Amino acid sequence: MRAMGIDPGTARCGFGIVDSQGSRLHPVTYGVIETTPDHTDAQRLVMIYDSLNRLYETYHPDIIGVEQLFFNRNVTTAIAVGQARGIILLTAQQAGITLLEFSPLQVKQGVTGYGRATKDQVIDMTMRLLNIREKIKPDDAADGLAMAIYALYSNHSQSLKRTVQL
Amino acid sequence: MRAMGIDPGTARCGFGIVDSQGSRLHPVTYGVIETTPDHTDAQRLVMIYDSLNRLYETYHPDIIGVEQLFFNRNVTTAIAVGQARGIILLTAQQAGITLLEFSPLQVKQGVTGYGRATKDQVIDMTMRLLNIREKIKPDDAADGLAMAIYALYSNHSQSLKRTVQL
Repeated sequence: MRAMGIDPGTARCGFGIVDSQGSRLHPVTYGVIETTPDHTDAQRLVMIYDSLNRLYETYHPDIIGVEQLFFNRNVTTAIAVGQARGIILLTAQQAGITLLEFSPLQVKQGVTGYGRATKDQVIDMTMRLLNIREKIKPDDAADGLAMAIYALYSNHSQSLKRTVQL
Repeated sequence: MRAMGIDPGTARCGFGIVDSQGSRLHPVTYGVIETTPDHTDAQRLVMIYDSLNRLYETYHPDIIGVEQLFFNRNVTTAIAVGQARGIILLTAQQAGITLLEFSPLQVKQGVTGYGRATKDQVIDMTMRLLNIREKIKPDDAADGLAMAIYALYSNHSQSLKRTVQL
């Protein structure tokens, strides 16, 4: 099973791709899709659309994990992130890839076992679970990997539930 | 010159298409793209994506007008509207259609001559300018027409400015 986690943003979308074989996890790739402000919002969204489609075609993820967004902050930021998030949902659906949505709390809880874990603790545990030695940069890519891990856990536990129900 | 105005939303995207010939305006079509909550957000965004592309292919607008979004309200709503707005920007750019963005205040001011006009006053003036007798329903479609009118005005005054500069 191969999962891709994506952290939406217009300037940078972090992503991480992780394979699971039984209970073992292997990192496949991670990085960020970056766009610069010398392009219009519309041009940047097209770049994200094209980059995501290239990643799907190259890596063929079985599932995609994205966070539900809860902002208390700047509403202008919420709209910009919402626009990028729209492109993620659109491309996943167009590519026929199963989409899992979960809260930031679920990811923290699922990856570290502790819902109040700091960002650094989540990154640290992500590196341990994937046996990555060098610090993952930037943080957005680490977020993508953490979401991919949680997507695999979440999908696995749903499969278990389905098996139990039979 | 043919302009299309689009009012973003996941449940309903209002749109209106207007032609200008000199200073005369003619309505071409208007309506809403509606999606129902029995589909996922991702499915609804694909429906909006496909519907917009069909409208561009059918009506070939030269320019598309959308409002900048300023919310003081619910941030969850802002994200949902942002997602739909992302699809509008994406499809316009992919189709190579010039995109004009303006504030709700500019549209009110431009269409009615009065920045504090009520929603009903904007709809009323939109109907007069387009010589539409029956009440435009729903309001989202009227918003789309008002944005199309303002996009034509805005584009025309920019052309005038360019002419003057020569």
